[in-house]
Parts: sequence; C-alpha cells; structure tokens
Amino acid sequence: MTESTRTPPSPALLERFAAIVGPRHVVTEPDAMRPYLVEWRDLYEGVSPMVLRPGSTAEVAAILALASETGTAVVPQGGNTGLVGAQVPDRSGAEIVLSLGRLDRIRAVDPASDTLVAEAGVVLERVQAAAEAADRLFPLSLGSQGSCTIGGNLSTNAGGTGVLAYGNAKDLVLGLEVVLPTGEVLDGLRALRKDNAGYDMKGLFLGTEGTLGVITAAVLKLFAKPKAQEVAVVGVEAPEAALSLLALAKGRAGTQLTAFEAMPRMLVDFALRHLPGTRDPLPSAPPWYLLVEVSVGTTDAEARALMETILEDGLTAGLVLDATIAGSLAQARDFWRLRHGLSEVQKYEGGSIKHDVSVPLAAVPAFIAEAEAAVGALVPGCRPVPFGHLGDGNIHFNVSQPVGGDKAAFLARWDEMNAVVHGIATRMGGSIAAEHGVGRLKRDLLPGVRSPVEIALMRRLKATLDPAGILNPGRVI
Amino acid sequence: MTESTRTPPSPALLERFAAIVGPRHVVTEPDAMRPYLVEWRDLYEGVSPMVLRPGSTAEVAAILALASETGTAVVPQGGNTGLVGAQVPDRSGAEIVLSLGRLDRIRAVDPASDTLVAEAGVVLERVQAAAEAADRLFPLSLGSQGSCTIGGNLSTNAGGTGVLAYGNAKDLVLGLEVVLPTGEVLDGLRALRKDNAGYDMKGLFLGTEGTLGVITAAVLKLFAKPKAQEVAVVGVEAPEAALSLLALAKGRAGTQLTAFEAMPRMLVDFALRHLPGTRDPLPSAPPWYLLVEVSVGTTDAEARALMETILEDGLTAGLVLDATIAGSLAQARDFWRLRHGLSEVQKYEGGSIKHDVSVPLAAVPAFIAEAEAAVGALVPGCRPVPFGHLGDGNIHFNVSQPVGGDKAAFLARWDEMNAVVHGIATRMGGSIAAEHGVGRLKRDLLPGVRSPVEIALMRRLKATLDPAGILNPGRVI
Repeated sequence: MTESTRTPPSPALLERFAAIVGPRHVVTEPDAMRPYLVEWRDLYEGVSPMVLRPGSTAEVAAILALASETGTAVVPQGGNTGLVGAQVPDRSGAEIVLSLGRLDRIRAVDPASDTLVAEAGVVLERVQAAAEAADRLFPLSLGSQGSCTIGGNLSTNAGGTGVLAYGNAKDLVLGLEVVLPTGEVLDGLRALRKDNAGYDMKGLFLGTEGTLGVITAAVLKLFAKPKAQEVAVVGVEAPEAALSLLALAKGRAGTQLTAFEAMPRMLVDFALRHLPGTRDPLPSAPPWYLLVEVSVGTTDAEARALMETILEDGLTAGLVLDATIAGSLAQARDFWRLRHGLSEVQKYEGGSIKHDVSVPLAAVPAFIAEAEAAVGALVPGCRPVPFGHLGDGNIHFNVSQPVGGDKAAFLARWDEMNAVVHGIATRMGGSIAAEHGVGRLKRDLLPGVRSPVEIALMRRLKATLDPAGILNPGRVI
Repeated sequence: MTESTRTPPSPALLERFAAIVGPRHVVTEPDAMRPYLVEWRDLYEGVSPMVLRPGSTAEVAAILALASETGTAVVPQGGNTGLVGAQVPDRSGAEIVLSLGRLDRIRAVDPASDTLVAEAGVVLERVQAAAEAADRLFPLSLGSQGSCTIGGNLSTNAGGTGVLAYGNAKDLVLGLEVVLPTGEVLDGLRALRKDNAGYDMKGLFLGTEGTLGVITAAVLKLFAKPKAQEVAVVGVEAPEAALSLLALAKGRAGTQLTAFEAMPRMLVDFALRHLPGTRDPLPSAPPWYLLVEVSVGTTDAEARALMETILEDGLTAGLVLDATIAGSLAQARDFWRLRHGLSEVQKYEGGSIKHDVSVPLAAVPAFIAEAEAAVGALVPGCRPVPFGHLGDGNIHFNVSQPVGGDKAAFLARWDEMNAVVHGIATRMGGSIAAEHGVGRLKRDLLPGVRSPVEIALMRRLKATLDPAGILNPGRVI
C-alpha cells in the first residue's frame, strides 16, 4: 500500500475548491470528517485537507476541472462501504475527498420503459424502494444496501445475491452521466435497450473504481416484480453434486432461479453456535447446505411446483440427500437470515483470513478441494469455510483459525495464505477480485494476474482519460 | 462516404504481408476476390490489393504489427453480411482485407460452466449447433446466421430476435481474445461470471466495428435450453395497447417471454399478397399484429398455461382484440415465417426507405405516430410499415413508396426522409443505429447525435489504441 508523495494543497487552493460548493458543504472539522476518512472495518484510515460535498453535476465538473488544472488528487466517495480502500484518502494529506452524497435525487421512474434515473448519491435501498413503488424490481441486493450508494455500486461493479438471474451491477445500467477527470461532462443518460451509434463507453466507468471518471447519474434497468417465490434448503454430499443440481435447476427454471448459495456444514455449525435463534433446517446434517430460490410471475402454486420439480430431478439423479421447502414466509426469512449471518459468525471463531475469488463454474469443486488441502498444509488445523454464490462461481474462501490457536499468529499468515489461494484460483482461470474490486488492497497483486499487455492497456486508458493523474491515484492501476 | 486518400501498398510490402499467411491463403485474383469486395445488397463495392486469410491469432498479430509499422490500412471481415459498409474496403485500392474465415475452430464447449469458446470466423449457426449438441442454448439469432460469423456479430454488437430475454451480442460474452492494432495480443479469454480484477476492457472491442482491435476468439455464455415453447399471434388496436400488453407479459413471464414482435396490418397484407402459402392468422384483421413467444424449462402444458395467463390478463385489461395460439409446431413455424418474411415482402411493393432506430420503450407509440405523420407530410401517399422488436424499443421504421408512384423519385428522398425520422428519434432520446451499427453509412451522422464530449472521447480512444490509424479507418469515427 503505497502512499502518495504529493504535497497537500495550499490554503489558497483549498479556498478555490471550497468556493465551488459553498462553505456549508465543505467539511474540515476533524470529528465531522472522521466518517469520510475511516473505512468501516478500520483497515484504512486516511488524512485529508477537506471533504467537498457538491450538490450538482456542474459542481463536480468544476471541482475536477480545478483539480486537473492544479494537479490536485481527488478521491470520490459514495457510502464509504467499499472493502478494498478505493474510497478513503491515503495518509499523505494531499487527497481531497469528493463525497457524492448530496447528489441524491431520483430523477425519474418510468415503469413503461422499465427504467429509473438515479443520481450517484442515492442509497441503494432507496433505489429498490422507488422501483417497488412502481411495481418493479431493481435486483441489486447487498449486505450494505442501507448505506452504500448506487454510484459506488456502479463504480465498483458490485455483485451481491441477485447476480445469478440479473447479472452484476454493470449489467443493470442502460446509460451514464459521467464527469471526466478533465471536468468535461459525458451525458450518456440514454434509456435504450439497443444502441450501436458509436462506441459504448459506459464500460470505462463501470467497475473502474472512480479512476477514469466520476459517475454522477445512471439510467438503471427495472424488471418485473416476482409475484411468488419459493425457498428451499437442500443437503448434498459435495460441491460436485451442488454443481450438477445447479445445472438441473437452471434447466428447469432458467432465470427464474434467483438464488443458488452454498455453505459447508461447519459454517452452519458456526451459525447454530453464535446466531441466536438459529435452527438447523436439515437435522440430518449433510456435508453441504444449499439455499435455492425460485421466483415466478404467476402464483404461489406455480413457484411451489417449480421448486418441487427441481428437487424431484435432484432426487432422481441421486444428488439430493435431504431438503426442506420453506412452509411460510417466516421460514423463508429464517433460511435467508442463516445465509446472511455467515460472514458475521466467523468472527466469533477467532481470526479469519478472507478471499474473494471466482473460477469458471466447472472448476468450483476442484478449486475448493485444492485450496482446502493447500491451506491445511500451510496452517495445520485451520478451518476453511468456503461459501457463497456458487451459481456465479464466486466463492468466499474464508479460513478460520485453528481451535484454541493464537489469533495474531494466524492472521500474520494473511498474505502468505492469500498467495496460495490466489495462485490456485489463477491457475484455474479464476479471479482474485470477484466482487469487491482492487482498490488499494489488491493493486500490487494485479500485475501478477493480468498480462503485461493488459496492464499496459489499462495504463494507456488511465493516461488518456486522466492525463493529470488526479482521479483516485494509486487505486486499481 | 469519404474515400481514403492513402496510396496502395507497394508490391514489396504486399509480399511481406503475403509471406505471413503463405501464398495459399492470399487472394488476389479478381473473381476470387469479388465476394470479399461486394456488400451483399450491392450498396458498397470496394477495391483491394489483396485479401489475407490468416490461420491463427499469431498471424493476425503479425499482419497488424506490419500494418502499424508501415501505415497500411486493414479492413477486418467476417461473413461479409454487415449492413453499414464497415467490412468492405473503400475504392482507394489502399485497404487490405483481413478475412477471419479460417479462424473457425470451436475451441471448447463446457456445459458445466455454461460456456463455449469460439474463434472469430465460426459461422453463427455452428455456434448455435455446438451449444445445442451440449443440450444448451446460444440465443443470438439473426436472419444471416447461416453466413455471418461470431466475430462479426460481436464486433457489431448484433441484435436479432433473442435480445428481449437474453440481451444483445455483447451481453453474451464473458471473455475476449483480441489483437490490438499494434499487433499486441490481449488474452482475456476468461470464463468468469464475476471478475473485478482491473479494468474490464471487453467493451472497447464489442460493437466498435473492428476500429479498435480485431476479435480473434471469445468465451460465450450458454443458457439452459427451453424444453417447451408457445407462440401466439395477438391483435391489438394500436402501439399503446401493445406496450401495455408487453408490461403484463413481462410481469407474468419475466425472461420466459422470449419474443414480442409487432407489425402493422398493412405489412401483413404485403405478406399475404407476396409470400406464397401465407394465411392470415387473425381473419378479424386487427390494426396491429403481435407475435408473442414464451419458453419454459418444464412442460408443454406449463408453456400453454403461461401463454393463456398472459392473454387472459390482456383480455381483462381490454387490450387484446383477437388472439390465436399455435396449435402445432407447424403453425408456430408459420407464425415465425410470416414475421421473418416482413423484410422481403417490402421489395415487391416498390421502393422502400429504411431506418434502424430505437427509442425508450414508453416512447414507441409517440415515435410511430409522429414519424408516420412526418413522412406522410414529406411524401404524400407513402406507406409507413413500422415493425420489429417492440420489446426492445427497436422499430424498423421502413416506408414503402406510394402505390403507382415512381420508384427512383421516391428513393431520391432517402436522405431527406432519414433526416426527418432520425430527428424525431433523437429528440425522444433514441438511437439512429439500433442494431446495424454505423460503419461508413452513418459515420457522418454521428456528430449530429452524439455530444462533442462523446465524439472527442471516441477519437481519443481511437488514437490511444490505434496510433497509426490503420484499423478500419473511416468507419464509425
């Protein structure tokens, strides 16, 4: 994690920045600044001369134009929920924070076009609620949805639990309004399903973590709201069986299969131990638990019939050891509560070394087997609890410390264990940054997993769009 | 349509190019070259010193490296089915044709990962067949699928009839192998559903019509193959009713709604007149005909029930005037045959001025009404027959000449009528190039429909990736 060698902006320059947004929207007082400077897991704590809170796209443009003119580093920030340090300033004191929180208007909801136009600072939950109010679904769904912003979601190409049926955040965008590092405004707020009039440049800004431009608004896709859902917990022997059941389920349900999450029995044990009120949905205690959800536009009976067809297929194929379909909304919520609690419960079992990897679907079983063996050889007695979005090939390969071991000694192996797990994923054609991005945390790892041609092209794009190098420097590339 | 002012390559230089692929794979004989030089509608006929047919990615790389070194213009070509002149050389005689037809291997089919790796020159129908053989669906489907290549489909971001449920061509790609104009090979053949490790650069090459790089292979997404389908022809009063029925159908079927095509009664009349064996599926002759298709992973009975639910919803809402569900596979084929014949039958009604526009869904009725009035004012008696992918907001707003009028005089109004129709689409936030691209045909129109900031950024990208300006010069930007 390299720190910038820039010098902090002069007081006179800071005054010019402050004048753009007006004194009421500049934060410099230490206590008030703190929420913008500290990452929520306390992995990163930065220093900044000021936080600017612009109220319009034009103000964002003026800030970036001045920054480019003066070579001032700017760090864009949404809800400050990122996990890789992209959105907090470094400790140089030279980076101004650009908070998009005041760009919080939902500019339009158009159910007939299945679109919604939101500004960058709108909290994800508000986007979901606005879609719901129009009898539509905005399917992006994350743990942090009560505080993360749509601008941050798009800048990091967030994943979450809706990817299987609806895609990643970048797949949910029809058009973007972006301020380029030079201060130019790229107005591409088009609401079109088909458009080949010139280069589609959205991809330069979706998932590039605010290094090539600042997204200020987006046209988002809305979907029909499911009218009925069914959730089941299914027990299988091993990841191979889970993968086979996934293929059967997709064959029956297509994109009506809206969740296919996997967790090993050990992680269910963690939850039973530490999440008050958790009941084991499968008292037969199979080695792997799957959470399977289907969503339909017709009736409860149809949803139930579809789920039963999938489970019958799985039983016939000898894949399903045990299964239970939620008998009520409350039970469905319990199943999801168990799944959502899996990150939290790990902390009650001591130190945990985390990985956010993905591999091609077919490689998931081999990846889990090899990675388990490798970390077991590295730290005998450690407890791998790989879980997550099996349907997307995205496994949170987390490893809890040995029972009774020393937490600090275990966590000291973090980088070493990362290298082992990332090496296996990379060899299988996988990614070391599946849904959380690169930021500062994994920037130095990128040249190890991307070819020199790719790295060089990324650098050329950065230099083309941000010739002064002012936007989120030191992140990603 | 500007012609290049380059001078043709010298014989010595041509020999260096020929040596890369070997003499057997160079075409210079006029008759043999002709299929590479003439666009299939005879709108474009070019001149070229040679057609190169490389057999590997390395050969493509060597060709582009030499072209960049010597400033030689190169025009990549797949199946030569493009509609905007991107893939045929101009008349300067300076542009070498790079045919990808020999890169025709399907490198891998992986049903467990739902992926297929195809080289650029594989004909679309072969991709579909390889997916089918693995009990999967590759949903891209076009009129030219027997001769167009997947490389061309991706370079032009092809649309077709599968967009409603599965997206455009660019949405069907997980990874790309690309040769940059400099000859560097960008190997991004990753088969991952989630990957945020650095910039995703696929968007630079998908839909940019071979101006920023040459796609040599792609990892394509496969889908579950539907097990049952149902097709209906539905009569409605007007586009407004069609749009309301679309919303109801999406609500019930989600992405199981796999087609929603619209055609006016006049175009059905054309088909009845000119397509032998066509029967009117709705003898009540409503003003608009819709072709509605649903696809499910379960049974024929489920598909039928879903279609009936949609039609009942539509009847209850007073939207459906008449409807008939295909009673057999043969009847379903007849319905689709009618739809697919709509382009052809226009030519039997004299001159036809064509538009490939899209607008936000909600704007479709207003667009059709305004454009019909405007072209009627421009050429009294002309016969607008707007039809196509209503579910995508993509209307082929074609206009047949007045009955008994002079064809040449009508076609002489082409640019004038284009300007009127494009103006209306643009004012409604639409696109003048929805699924056929820009190429040479619409290049000069682009600055009229994209902002100076967008045009400038496209030019910066072109200069960054292709500093020598050798790849498909004069196309798109």
